[in-house]
Amino acid sequence: MQWNAWGAAESATPLSQNITDLLRSALGVTGHPRPAVAADDVALSPGRLTAADLDDLRAVVGDAYVSDAHADRLLRAGGKSTPDLLRRTAREQDAPDAVVLPGTDDEVATLLRWCSEHHVAVVAFGGGTSVVGGLDPVDGGLRAVISLDLRRFDRLVDLDEVSGVAVMGAGLTGPRAEELLGERGFSLGHFPQSHQFATIGGFAVTRSSGQDSAGYGRFDDMVVGLTTITPRGTLTLGTVAKSAAGPDLRQLILGSEGTLGIVTAVALRVHRTPTAAINEAWHFPDFVTGAHALRAVAQRGPGLGPTVLRLSDEAETGVNLAKPGAIADGTAPGGTLAITRYEGDAAACAARRELTADVLAAAGGTSLGSEAADAWEHGRFSAPYLRDSLLAVGAGCETLETATSWARIPDLRTAVTSALTDALAASGSQALVLCHISHTYPTGASLYFTVVYKMSSEIDPIEQWAAAKSAANDAIVASGATITHHHAVGVDHRGRLDAEIGSVGVEILRAVKQALDPAGILNPGKLIP
Amino acid sequence: MQWNAWGAAESATPLSQNITDLLRSALGVTGHPRPAVAADDVALSPGRLTAADLDDLRAVVGDAYVSDAHADRLLRAGGKSTPDLLRRTAREQDAPDAVVLPGTDDEVATLLRWCSEHHVAVVAFGGGTSVVGGLDPVDGGLRAVISLDLRRFDRLVDLDEVSGVAVMGAGLTGPRAEELLGERGFSLGHFPQSHQFATIGGFAVTRSSGQDSAGYGRFDDMVVGLTTITPRGTLTLGTVAKSAAGPDLRQLILGSEGTLGIVTAVALRVHRTPTAAINEAWHFPDFVTGAHALRAVAQRGPGLGPTVLRLSDEAETGVNLAKPGAIADGTAPGGTLAITRYEGDAAACAARRELTADVLAAAGGTSLGSEAADAWEHGRFSAPYLRDSLLAVGAGCETLETATSWARIPDLRTAVTSALTDALAASGSQALVLCHISHTYPTGASLYFTVVYKMSSEIDPIEQWAAAKSAANDAIVASGATITHHHAVGVDHRGRLDAEIGSVGVEILRAVKQALDPAGILNPGKLIP
Repeated sequence: MQWNAWGAAESATPLSQNITDLLRSALGVTGHPRPAVAADDVALSPGRLTAADLDDLRAVVGDAYVSDAHADRLLRAGGKSTPDLLRRTAREQDAPDAVVLPGTDDEVATLLRWCSEHHVAVVAFGGGTSVVGGLDPVDGGLRAVISLDLRRFDRLVDLDEVSGVAVMGAGLTGPRAEELLGERGFSLGHFPQSHQFATIGGFAVTRSSGQDSAGYGRFDDMVVGLTTITPRGTLTLGTVAKSAAGPDLRQLILGSEGTLGIVTAVALRVHRTPTAAINEAWHFPDFVTGAHALRAVAQRGPGLGPTVLRLSDEAETGVNLAKPGAIADGTAPGGTLAITRYEGDAAACAARRELTADVLAAAGGTSLGSEAADAWEHGRFSAPYLRDSLLAVGAGCETLETATSWARIPDLRTAVTSALTDALAASGSQALVLCHISHTYPTGASLYFTVVYKMSSEIDPIEQWAAAKSAANDAIVASGATITHHHAVGVDHRGRLDAEIGSVGVEILRAVKQALDPAGILNPGKLIP
Repeated sequence: MQWNAWGAAESATPLSQNITDLLRSALGVTGHPRPAVAADDVALSPGRLTAADLDDLRAVVGDAYVSDAHADRLLRAGGKSTPDLLRRTAREQDAPDAVVLPGTDDEVATLLRWCSEHHVAVVAFGGGTSVVGGLDPVDGGLRAVISLDLRRFDRLVDLDEVSGVAVMGAGLTGPRAEELLGERGFSLGHFPQSHQFATIGGFAVTRSSGQDSAGYGRFDDMVVGLTTITPRGTLTLGTVAKSAAGPDLRQLILGSEGTLGIVTAVALRVHRTPTAAINEAWHFPDFVTGAHALRAVAQRGPGLGPTVLRLSDEAETGVNLAKPGAIADGTAPGGTLAITRYEGDAAACAARRELTADVLAAAGGTSLGSEAADAWEHGRFSAPYLRDSLLAVGAGCETLETATSWARIPDLRTAVTSALTDALAASGSQALVLCHISHTYPTGASLYFTVVYKMSSEIDPIEQWAAAKSAANDAIVASGATITHHHAVGVDHRGRLDAEIGSVGVEILRAVKQALDPAGILNPGKLIP
């Protein structure tokens, strides 16, 4: 992961002529490059740990696993939201005071005790892909911040092939997890857009949801057990998938974003590597018709439908399928595109495809064959690279997401699209707002928005986006939707959490926080209002 | 619900000659009737609420909805475990000091404030079907106990037919909930053995799991939202099925057994009334082969299999299918019986049946057609009535349940069966231990045990069973299985909860309890160690 851009430098995606033309014609983006800053030219906030502190930390994890080097601190100074990337162009940046890489549960426990006693905040770091400010080096009034990097928890600890349960280290990245499972003939099936860099622990504590969620469920659905190191001791949860032994405390750790403890291992439901797959795209005349069709599939029964089930709205379909001139002059092909993909054994794939095709056709869909679905699959992890190229030419680009019940989906899409368009217009920028449904349930679905606009030359671009994001959040809260379906809360949604869980809900979180982390060292300023 | 027996008196199930013969030949139960006690002959613990207290309570809910009448107190004095039923033969019994029936959330909130201020414990009461002591009138050192009966929360508050979400009052019984939904063309699909009497709120706070769980999920899977009245205020949770807005606090209330708040309404996923169903029974040569077959179905993918999926072990199959003489002399037909039932639309049922039949046949199963599955369906709610008849002739009968990963299922069944058999043998009683799998997941399954034995004439029958139950619990904990898959914790499993969630887990529960119920009025002595 690069410190100031997504992913691996060699995978950078230059803008095609089509996109460059579209930016100019639709949004007036003329391609003035924005100034970047070299890593060495960034002045980081001065380190606040003493030599004695650093010696203490080295005594816990070993000399090789503590660093206050510029490059190490810089990498862990933030996540990968657009505001994060915009902040990365500044000459002065906040950063954790040191990076510590423990290798065992005992070392994590010792670190948490030391930090509690020495008033040092702890920000857990996995793949560095947070898009909600979850990695901001907030000290919460303590005297310093360490970044606790979990990359050494990188083992497939155990695989029960009979039960289909894998215990995986929290620091395993998505691809490495799949690689280790694949060697044994298994797969996890969790493929969010962050898949190539994000980690098992990060997926857990942010309630990540992957593109194959229709088939394999969200990450939190896959979790059987968790090992969590807290300042009060180790919490080992999960003897079996489901139990009636009181409240399900796993569900407190899932989504806890490093504020309640450090997750070091996760026991996960895995499945045999699929032996067959079918890709198929569908056309619907409009978004609402398409959404009704997806609803019919989801409500027929979980598991009978596709593994991947997505629907782009008219705008997103147009951008993906049309030539740019056609977008600008309104002659893009009408309608909306849905992607389906089935994975499993051949007989089950065929049966599910047939049942689903019947539902989609009856609901007004037309099969387009596999081509557009293959193209989606090919580019499924590449969008964040495109954003870097857009930002580099002065086009603002960010995503946000929410979820609601099926009955409210059409109005929620309209409300958020309008809020974003209006707020950016108020700052003088025309915006292109694209939307898709990417996660479906019998009772509702997620909406994922992508916004592209000309960054203002008059307003601080961070403030310009903040106003648009705030307007979108207002629309989401007013619609009774969730403030986040799979990106988590972090800093960015923390101010809206009370609207979602109420003051009694916030009291519960604070009580658990106080019980597990009485010194308040764990990821201060995130999640809990 | 009768005060000292299951269900409705008119549904009592006399023992057949076959069963009577089996009891005599296999267990030496010769049918000496056990003494019962008439309701009017029971001396209840003296009421501890003053006239002023009762006036206060009446001021909150109205005169008609407060009672300290003998019959009202007696009914709420306990649940329906075998120890509960044995206790109900005593001349002196503990009971709540009064029964209060609020009709609104505000009344519940006012009651909880009054009870907090006046040091009175509150035991929530739904259908009265707890089998883990969840309704015991424990005062927790407070000066009295009220039973808070939720039967007036009996409305289908809202039905979103598009999203398939029903908001249901906590006091609705299973059949009434289905009736109200059925009038609108919907069904919940939650059919535990307690279905005919238990309530929506009870299902939620005990994490109930119904016989159709393979198709419709456990009750906690169905919950979209909850309204919970706590002494600290109202907690309203659940805007959408799934969210990443922090920990899922719904999962703290689910399974909370009345210790954290009073659930008054639950938003639930519902589905269109099925238009087709297929019943089919299967034979397997032995339990382990059958369990592998169920595993193969569950691991192929949720939703592709049956709505109901069960497997009886050799002993249970023998009792259900054989003539009693054959059990006694070992000539009962060998092998094990599995029940499948598919519900949905005709096309989906047919496809799921075909996919499943292929898996079951490949795993060594032989289809027996529908007859045995129809018989199971016909008697699906009747077992508790049979227990009353068994107890009446001096045959001890109780059930218990657990769950574990697939790899551990065979050993767990053996360990629990042996523990029960040995413990009852030590008390001088031969036992018949029957077992079935009734809830399956990709990673594991539940085991449900039924024990029938001759009640000792020398030991207190409550103590005789307690020793057997304790031995079973030891075996469950030693196997790393869950102490309860769907019966909840209550009083009976409270001493084992720390083995399951550890001391840090217990600390979390205590912290949440302290935050929501600082006076400790809510169901003291249950769940939280």
